[in-house]
Amino acid sequence: MAKVGFIGAGKIGQTIAYSALVSGAVDEAVIYDIIPELPDKFEHELRHAFATKGIKANVLGTNSLDDVSGMDIVVISAGKPRKPGMSRRDLFVDNAKIMIDLAQKLPSKNPGAIYLMVANPVDMMASVFMKYSKQFTISAGDQVETMRMRSFIAKKLKIPVTSVDGFVGGEHGEDAVVLWSTVKIKGKPVDEFNINKDEVSDYVKKIPGEIIRVIGGTTWGPGTIIADIIKSIAFSENRVMSIATPKEYEKEIIHVSAPTVVGSSIGPSLESLLDEKDRWHLNSAMKDFYEAYKENLKQLEQATKA
Amino acid sequence: MAKVGFIGAGKIGQTIAYSALVSGAVDEAVIYDIIPELPDKFEHELRHAFATKGIKANVLGTNSLDDVSGMDIVVISAGKPRKPGMSRRDLFVDNAKIMIDLAQKLPSKNPGAIYLMVANPVDMMASVFMKYSKQFTISAGDQVETMRMRSFIAKKLKIPVTSVDGFVGGEHGEDAVVLWSTVKIKGKPVDEFNINKDEVSDYVKKIPGEIIRVIGGTTWGPGTIIADIIKSIAFSENRVMSIATPKEYEKEIIHVSAPTVVGSSIGPSLESLLDEKDRWHLNSAMKDFYEAYKENLKQLEQATKA
Amino acid sequence: MAKVGFIGAGKIGQTIAYSALVSGAVDEAVIYDIIPELPDKFEHELRHAFATKGIKANVLGTNSLDDVSGMDIVVISAGKPRKPGMSRRDLFVDNAKIMIDLAQKLPSKNPGAIYLMVANPVDMMASVFMKYSKQFTISAGDQVETMRMRSFIAKKLKIPVTSVDGFVGGEHGEDAVVLWSTVKIKGKPVDEFNINKDEVSDYVKKIPGEIIRVIGGTTWGPGTIIADIIKSIAFSENRVMSIATPKEYEKEIIHVSAPTVVGSSIGPSLESLLDEKDRWHLNSAMKDFYEAYKENLKQLEQATKA
Amino acid sequence: MAKVGFIGAGKIGQTIAYSALVSGAVDEAVIYDIIPELPDKFEHELRHAFATKGIKANVLGTNSLDDVSGMDIVVISAGKPRKPGMSRRDLFVDNAKIMIDLAQKLPSKNPGAIYLMVANPVDMMASVFMKYSKQFTISAGDQVETMRMRSFIAKKLKIPVTSVDGFVGGEHGEDAVVLWSTVKIKGKPVDEFNINKDEVSDYVKKIPGEIIRVIGGTTWGPGTIIADIIKSIAFSENRVMSIATPKEYEKEIIHVSAPTVVGSSIGPSLESLLDEKDRWHLNSAMKDFYEAYKENLKQLEQATKA
Repeated sequence: MAKVGFIGAGKIGQTIAYSALVSGAVDEAVIYDIIPELPDKFEHELRHAFATKGIKANVLGTNSLDDVSGMDIVVISAGKPRKPGMSRRDLFVDNAKIMIDLAQKLPSKNPGAIYLMVANPVDMMASVFMKYSKQFTISAGDQVETMRMRSFIAKKLKIPVTSVDGFVGGEHGEDAVVLWSTVKIKGKPVDEFNINKDEVSDYVKKIPGEIIRVIGGTTWGPGTIIADIIKSIAFSENRVMSIATPKEYEKEIIHVSAPTVVGSSIGPSLESLLDEKDRWHLNSAMKDFYEAYKENLKQLEQATKA
Repeated sequence: MAKVGFIGAGKIGQTIAYSALVSGAVDEAVIYDIIPELPDKFEHELRHAFATKGIKANVLGTNSLDDVSGMDIVVISAGKPRKPGMSRRDLFVDNAKIMIDLAQKLPSKNPGAIYLMVANPVDMMASVFMKYSKQFTISAGDQVETMRMRSFIAKKLKIPVTSVDGFVGGEHGEDAVVLWSTVKIKGKPVDEFNINKDEVSDYVKKIPGEIIRVIGGTTWGPGTIIADIIKSIAFSENRVMSIATPKEYEKEIIHVSAPTVVGSSIGPSLESLLDEKDRWHLNSAMKDFYEAYKENLKQLEQATKA
Repeated sequence: MAKVGFIGAGKIGQTIAYSALVSGAVDEAVIYDIIPELPDKFEHELRHAFATKGIKANVLGTNSLDDVSGMDIVVISAGKPRKPGMSRRDLFVDNAKIMIDLAQKLPSKNPGAIYLMVANPVDMMASVFMKYSKQFTISAGDQVETMRMRSFIAKKLKIPVTSVDGFVGGEHGEDAVVLWSTVKIKGKPVDEFNINKDEVSDYVKKIPGEIIRVIGGTTWGPGTIIADIIKSIAFSENRVMSIATPKEYEKEIIHVSAPTVVGSSIGPSLESLLDEKDRWHLNSAMKDFYEAYKENLKQLEQATKA
Repeated sequence: MAKVGFIGAGKIGQTIAYSALVSGAVDEAVIYDIIPELPDKFEHELRHAFATKGIKANVLGTNSLDDVSGMDIVVISAGKPRKPGMSRRDLFVDNAKIMIDLAQKLPSKNPGAIYLMVANPVDMMASVFMKYSKQFTISAGDQVETMRMRSFIAKKLKIPVTSVDGFVGGEHGEDAVVLWSTVKIKGKPVDEFNINKDEVSDYVKKIPGEIIRVIGGTTWGPGTIIADIIKSIAFSENRVMSIATPKEYEKEIIHVSAPTVVGSSIGPSLESLLDEKDRWHLNSAMKDFYEAYKENLKQLEQATKA
């Protein structure tokens, strides 16, 4: 699979598309944004990059959603970013409206596509999009946090990041938890090393805010990591990644991240292989997610009525 | 991790080393073979290839096993191939002797290394090497069969191989079984497609013999696939691969393949996530392996006494 | 060669560094910027990206120029961008001061390094840096225009960009000229195809302005193309690229782009192999460059006296 | 360009095809050999490798030359190897007959293709194929020697091979000469280093024989290097490589290697940029080539009459 639609050509959408295309995982890309000329000019930038790299992928930047057609994967990064003074709930309502709109327009033209949600709040947006589209939807979830965790431990211990293994799970954002039973350093349990677990969790929670404060947004990290989710699907690499796949909870489809096999087919989840403590964290994340989600759906209902 | 020792520079050892080095997964390679000059001349060939590719890996071809030191991964392909008229048991005894010898020499110089067995009968050789070395040993197992299975289905259905997912498990060779519950095509269960399962199983069993008959050996397939096992460890990609990891069975360490997460740490196995039928196949493969292995160990004992 | 210093971590500096690191061309990167915390936070972003890619390069983001030490290549993108109402000459003076400052500080710590200029006006900044540093300096020159030209022709003819060959030369910017004698399409002279040459030249001149107007800056194109200059040096690929190398003209070192072999050694230039018309264009570009440069140097002298 | 036909699936043909396909340079490959089943079984091996790598290239192994149709590049490695007691002239006659046969069959089905000769004596076979086919033909020439030269100097000086630049030219084989004016180490002239030039020339001449004596053939070096010629054409990388392009000499088309730009269009040659001594070597190589070639053509004529 390799035809990829990108809904949203903001900073993060651009970085994901660029990284996925340069990695060779995408044969055909259609990049949509509502901002006039933006996808077109981004297309030009990509074509200049392809010239030096010898990349032959077809690429189209467009302001017409109808051009996103026949895709294998659709990556949705469209949506508003959270502004100062704005609650997560406010963000939910604004972006959920966008998702409902996309959920009505995209499926008929892209039968059988996998939808990969990137817009925030990412897990809830995946659930909303799937609720309204009835299409198989995954959330980039905690794979970004997973890589930040590995990166921090590696720098702390002054070892290559490739020596650190393990995953972060739960809802993306401040409630994500390091699944400590999965963390291995040079193949050995984390407890054999001098690691302050609170410091690790703290880093994972706080580093995006720090980057946003200084640079204005996180792009290179999430862009590359999410592009690798696309790559693992497109090349059917079967990498285990901490993404959120749809699960039924009290008759509602919800999205909470756990280590999951990512290939041309998505799954299974490795949740049942975790130790009791980590499974407890994930269960509790699902309950929290469900309750907040239901609350947010109510707000959404009121907002759309108004 | 990236320092890789290659024990054996025959056709398959050469292809694995080449493919792993060209993929960038190896920073330092030490290639050992007992045949005079062979590793040295192979080193020259690799250096010529590195020049055009801009590869800066250190590489040493050597006839001295002592040079294999400080490695993160040791790949063992040394051993005799099966000759006409030779039983599998005969092959076991001959190659087990080589493994016991290596098990005595390699561990002290390579503390903490992962041993990756490639010599045939590959799963039993992994068990023998681990029994005598007490080192963590994995077998390339059925990852080659896994890719052959995907390749055959893709060609049959005239779809890209990246649209086919799934694994082969059990003992490497004629007793390997397709784990049908894992096989997905474009993300859908195999039963939605017109696939003759016997034909698939048959291909997986017979194609190596066909290739050997015409070309004299299988190299490009296994070489590339096994190099990707090394790559998944070295880059900590966490790909799920059907390799054999050590399991205790009746107080003996045995090696039978099941889908397993391969990163800088190896595992967990996804065996418990398979359906009942596939789990039954794997259990039965373990039992068969154990019995044949014990028998072979007895033969070995008698042979070494003699 | 593979130790690369990046002076300037703005948008373009970030994109070059990212693209060069992900391509595997850089073993060690030191990224400097004067803005507090910026290089540090960019380092974090890169580390997160490295985690998913398995990249083991050492990377340091720093506000201390002293950390840029022992580099093989130093890429200079530091400098002010041109603001509305600002003349090119004003830009020259402001950025030349930065170059003179860097020229005093960088050489002693980076003996034998190749300096690659990216800050605008790029060719003159290369000449200024070399004048004051006495170090071998090249300018990214017209390699970006070269790729834009190929990209435009490919899109126009609806053929893969890999079927278009040829170069743009002269001073980077509005005076760059397509070297038509070098342009080949599917290996054939451009005149066998229905190409409006003015339209091509026009595109090359105007597309950067168009991208800047819509996106706010050109990053993906130049970033990738300039990273490939680094890659061609680091892997000694000997790609022919239209960069500006130092040439003596009226006892002054000047920088004007022509197709040039780029490997671990830079050169030779292929200028003498061009047809008469293209050579005339390049000669005339050198004369123009020289005169404008001398004028600018005078302005600079007055500005520094003041 | 990316559709590549491989005429000959022996060891070297297999290695070139594998290396080119894994590098992503080939979208479609047709692999022909006269030996029954060989191309088919090699196709299976490649498909198994593609499965793990996620490669989507179309590949066909065939015993029918008619399947080699619509190619952009045709790589000819078919031919006999030199056997003990066989003169170079004998080899010429035997393989020239094969080339004449191919020259009659391939062109009509592959209009506009570039022919890349690999069969030995490689330069003369290129000339023969071009004489009889009237198609643009290049010889892999001295690019292999070029990389061997760089590799030897790098090992000798214990520096990365990417720090060594320069080319070998003249007729491929024992008469190839190091073009010393092009050799640079860390960007500096070779004379600043302690290099025994005779030792370098000697290595380039003798190492293939040494490898053949021990391993039975040279594959990894030439295979990778020649695949990079294909890659530089397919991605239009414009790498300078020491290949032999057609030149007219006394009204005969001959092939002698000189540094040449290799992209989707081939050329120009950098011969005129070399110093006088190196140019003299190349001129003298052309003369020698021409005389031996004319002699060989006479032998061929007599042999075909008989």
